[in-house]
Amino acid sequence: MTALDLNSDLGESFGRWTLGDDDAMLGLVTSANVACGFHAGDPTTLRRTVSAAARNGVVVGAQVAYRDLAGFGRRFVDVEPEDLTADVLFQIGGLEAMCRAAGTAVRYVKPHGALYNASVHHAAQARAVVAAVAEYDPTLPVLGLPGSELLRAAEERGLRAVPEFFVDRGYTPEGSLVPRREEGALLRDPAEVTERLVRMVTDGVVRAVDGTDVRVRAESACLHGDSPGAVAMAQAVRDGLAAAGVILEGFA
Amino acid sequence: MTALDLNSDLGESFGRWTLGDDDAMLGLVTSANVACGFHAGDPTTLRRTVSAAARNGVVVGAQVAYRDLAGFGRRFVDVEPEDLTADVLFQIGGLEAMCRAAGTAVRYVKPHGALYNASVHHAAQARAVVAAVAEYDPTLPVLGLPGSELLRAAEERGLRAVPEFFVDRGYTPEGSLVPRREEGALLRDPAEVTERLVRMVTDGVVRAVDGTDVRVRAESACLHGDSPGAVAMAQAVRDGLAAAGVILEGFA
Amino acid sequence: MTALDLNSDLGESFGRWTLGDDDAMLGLVTSANVACGFHAGDPTTLRRTVSAAARNGVVVGAQVAYRDLAGFGRRFVDVEPEDLTADVLFQIGGLEAMCRAAGTAVRYVKPHGALYNASVHHAAQARAVVAAVAEYDPTLPVLGLPGSELLRAAEERGLRAVPEFFVDRGYTPEGSLVPRREEGALLRDPAEVTERLVRMVTDGVVRAVDGTDVRVRAESACLHGDSPGAVAMAQAVRDGLAAAGVILEGFA
Amino acid sequence: MTALDLNSDLGESFGRWTLGDDDAMLGLVTSANVACGFHAGDPTTLRRTVSAAARNGVVVGAQVAYRDLAGFGRRFVDVEPEDLTADVLFQIGGLEAMCRAAGTAVRYVKPHGALYNASVHHAAQARAVVAAVAEYDPTLPVLGLPGSELLRAAEERGLRAVPEFFVDRGYTPEGSLVPRREEGALLRDPAEVTERLVRMVTDGVVRAVDGTDVRVRAESACLHGDSPGAVAMAQAVRDGLAAAGVILEGFA
Repeated sequence: MTALDLNSDLGESFGRWTLGDDDAMLGLVTSANVACGFHAGDPTTLRRTVSAAARNGVVVGAQVAYRDLAGFGRRFVDVEPEDLTADVLFQIGGLEAMCRAAGTAVRYVKPHGALYNASVHHAAQARAVVAAVAEYDPTLPVLGLPGSELLRAAEERGLRAVPEFFVDRGYTPEGSLVPRREEGALLRDPAEVTERLVRMVTDGVVRAVDGTDVRVRAESACLHGDSPGAVAMAQAVRDGLAAAGVILEGFA
Repeated sequence: MTALDLNSDLGESFGRWTLGDDDAMLGLVTSANVACGFHAGDPTTLRRTVSAAARNGVVVGAQVAYRDLAGFGRRFVDVEPEDLTADVLFQIGGLEAMCRAAGTAVRYVKPHGALYNASVHHAAQARAVVAAVAEYDPTLPVLGLPGSELLRAAEERGLRAVPEFFVDRGYTPEGSLVPRREEGALLRDPAEVTERLVRMVTDGVVRAVDGTDVRVRAESACLHGDSPGAVAMAQAVRDGLAAAGVILEGFA
Repeated sequence: MTALDLNSDLGESFGRWTLGDDDAMLGLVTSANVACGFHAGDPTTLRRTVSAAARNGVVVGAQVAYRDLAGFGRRFVDVEPEDLTADVLFQIGGLEAMCRAAGTAVRYVKPHGALYNASVHHAAQARAVVAAVAEYDPTLPVLGLPGSELLRAAEERGLRAVPEFFVDRGYTPEGSLVPRREEGALLRDPAEVTERLVRMVTDGVVRAVDGTDVRVRAESACLHGDSPGAVAMAQAVRDGLAAAGVILEGFA
Repeated sequence: MTALDLNSDLGESFGRWTLGDDDAMLGLVTSANVACGFHAGDPTTLRRTVSAAARNGVVVGAQVAYRDLAGFGRRFVDVEPEDLTADVLFQIGGLEAMCRAAGTAVRYVKPHGALYNASVHHAAQARAVVAAVAEYDPTLPVLGLPGSELLRAAEERGLRAVPEFFVDRGYTPEGSLVPRREEGALLRDPAEVTERLVRMVTDGVVRAVDGTDVRVRAESACLHGDSPGAVAMAQAVRDGLAAAGVILEGFA
């Protein structure tokens, strides 16, 4: 029997503004990447999200980001590594307090948005994120893109590095994501997405945009939660995996 | 032999802007009320302050505040109790992460500025602050004004409530602080301040603005760290207490 | 023939978070109270809203607020009058720049949320808002609650004070709004709302919660834009007013 | 007779935190690059700074920046050009309102910190800044580094492009600034600085770090206001220029 984790970004409302259907997604995923207030997530939202995750038996991870509410953490910020480490520490701690009040704990760390993208190639920022995790709790895994500087830095520091697969993104023959602007970047058909994911889990390969097969290893699959159709997609994926005999469980 | 704690607000710089002489004050106080990012204190500042406190053997407390950088937390905000509890939880957690990285921990909580003032009479906000502390860690003491709703709420919730004395503030015959706008509100003479403090510690009384003596019970004395002359005042107080045989040690 | 202005709060999205259906509302109202960045409204949102208003021939007003993104400007902040005047000036100017780029201008000022509520009774804050308008441009009208300190202060300063009517709120026999927590505070039936509004415009009276009639004088009627059913309500009101021969035009 | 403008960054305090000696600098410079709230400058600070500039006959420019209080605008942010244009418009407008209340006006625009540095080579961001100025008021000059994308974009758009000279920075033989990390980047001797500046004004050349002379054309000279010794340096420069018969006057 094979096991897989399903993760999704949650807790991304802010004050008067709501985003995504957290309640529905918490019934479908096994890990919640919960925002930490820097790109989204006011404290009341975080508290409710974390409590609901605990009630649903969903593992909580800290989705750390640049300090950029106006840009939703989607803009690269050339922050000094020392400051980034402190920013990440603060965010993990803020979310941890919510977890503690809810009887749970932060069990992994995943960067968000532009910080996620930067940590693929930007070794200094990747190491800064990893330093924060290591100083906070070296038993916390780091979730990221296979082959990224982030996972490399995590391994070098002795942390568990967990590669993830994007269920609704196209892959290049080299195993990286097709850039969002290019054709084949986004997959929208739940049946196709589910079939790809089952194949990735069972065979370790995925069909790339050029039709060839490429090896992909991942312990977690990322579902997007804030797009229209996100819940339906997540439900289809979950059902398809169950039908294929894949056990869904948190990696952390 | 009598013991007393000296506390002061620290970590109140923000990014490019520095405030106070934290290094000097950390050599003089026994407890540091460290800002938590909502009224002051960017993560890098908090991290450095907490590390320096640990090196100096100074106890760290979380100085929680309204979310109000522009007003330095000095303006009352009519925040809903549920949101205030979440805000306080987030702040304690953010600072705790810095402490963890520095090998120490948050050992008490004290509200800052307008939240401190509100928690004297505003029972709902006082209870909201206390709820955050109780849910985070019911062994953490709360530091506040004697007779305040804050300390009352802390006791009701089973937390340790620690009353404090303001060394440079005038007192009314009823034992409350002379409002800042009135005459006698602020004391500036280090010798007078020290003498009052020694008397408060040894006899439990302080001379009020009308010349009468008023009973005051406090386990900690608050020194202001961000005014000109703060360091000199703190040094004089420390020397005066030592000469009077008072042992300086953290209450927490 | 009688004329009436319909105003609504717009431009209240922020970055990734959207709120309300601005495009639909801009086809129905004659005045847009556009957020100014302090409680909502990132600059790109403001720019688009103001451009769309200009295209639709809708008059733009500055909806000024406390600096409180996390609370959406709905929490009273005890800001000093001098600071409030500066905050309001800054907000008007920020929005004016968007108007200038779109070939229009800020034509009135209306406080938002908790600042609106405070300016009913809080004379110092009401005067601080009015001072900003007077110093910026004394020909700008101020929109507010009849009988409020805000409108009184505006008149004292020689500004045009424009009273408004809330189409979906219940009124007390004294002509003030039924508090939100009480029964009869909110009206949800478009037909009833329209009928009340037509009667207010033509006869100057409204039926209060106790069944008596109360005199109400208003030059503008406020429609809420961010609730479900807001667009349908606005459409019904507009149609009802047209059927009653009321001309819809901006007051400014 | 030759004329020169002296500009400096002012209005960079924020709430409780003060930075620089604005009052002293306003007696020495002819143009004030006043912060606009995004990297520094709360509205009350801006209002006071602009009023003091008006009283001193100092020209006010808008010192626009990335939205980054925590980083003081010194970190590159990969903001989309459309958003950057809106951000710059909002900042100019906010400052303009302060100017209007003080009986003056924004007379030029200069990017701050990392946005200044980015606008040297980053054509898209440079054009986005220029677009905001052009849409706001095409008669406003843009102040920047000679040879920068910013000044090129300004000229292409028909704006007046004003090159500036840095009085306390070393120059390469190619006429660009010596990077801050390298030797010779910063000049600290007021006499040397003044002599270089007089020579630049009268002969159009400056001695580069390698000892050769390099042609430099500038209509304004930038003095830093927030470092220790800034006021003394500004005074020396001003005196030296007067002795050399250079007239000090705003370029705008």
